[in-house]
Amino acid sequence: ADIAAGKAKAAVCAACHGGNGISIIPDYPNLAGQKVKYLESSIKAYRDGERKNPIMSPMAAGLSDADVANIAAYFASLPAGG
Amino acid sequence: ADIAAGKAKAAVCAACHGGNGISIIPDYPNLAGQKVKYLESSIKAYRDGERKNPIMSPMAAGLSDADVANIAAYFASLPAGG
Repeated sequence: ADIAAGKAKAAVCAACHGGNGISIIPDYPNLAGQKVKYLESSIKAYRDGERKNPIMSPMAAGLSDADVANIAAYFASLPAGG
Repeated sequence: ADIAAGKAKAAVCAACHGGNGISIIPDYPNLAGQKVKYLESSIKAYRDGERKNPIMSPMAAGLSDADVANIAAYFASLPAGG
């Protein structure tokens, strides 16, 4: 996976999940240091409709598998706890 | 919330999510240091059928709101990254 490409693609995610992957909003999960496979399956679940959320579903729509892998690798690479 | 009670109730969770909240299995999320409100909403989503998973759904079934609050507080209290 391409972490730099993931970081670029994940710019929009920072609004809720934090620039360092520690979310600003208590209802939204921290992503920093999370398991990359779990991050991938979560993003795909929103993209493919297995999980539904008014914010995450549109965010994930249209992402390619490569985008998903890169975004997941980026957040997984951030130090857990920020 | 009662973190000690949460720890006791969460003993069964350690099998997948790790004794320190860092999961042993790459497909399963780390829970240590996660946002308590996100943990609560996730457990309730499994308990109430909003999210479906062959392992998590039965795990969450039957938990009271107090159990959920205690379990969530316990994992949120663990140092992120283990």
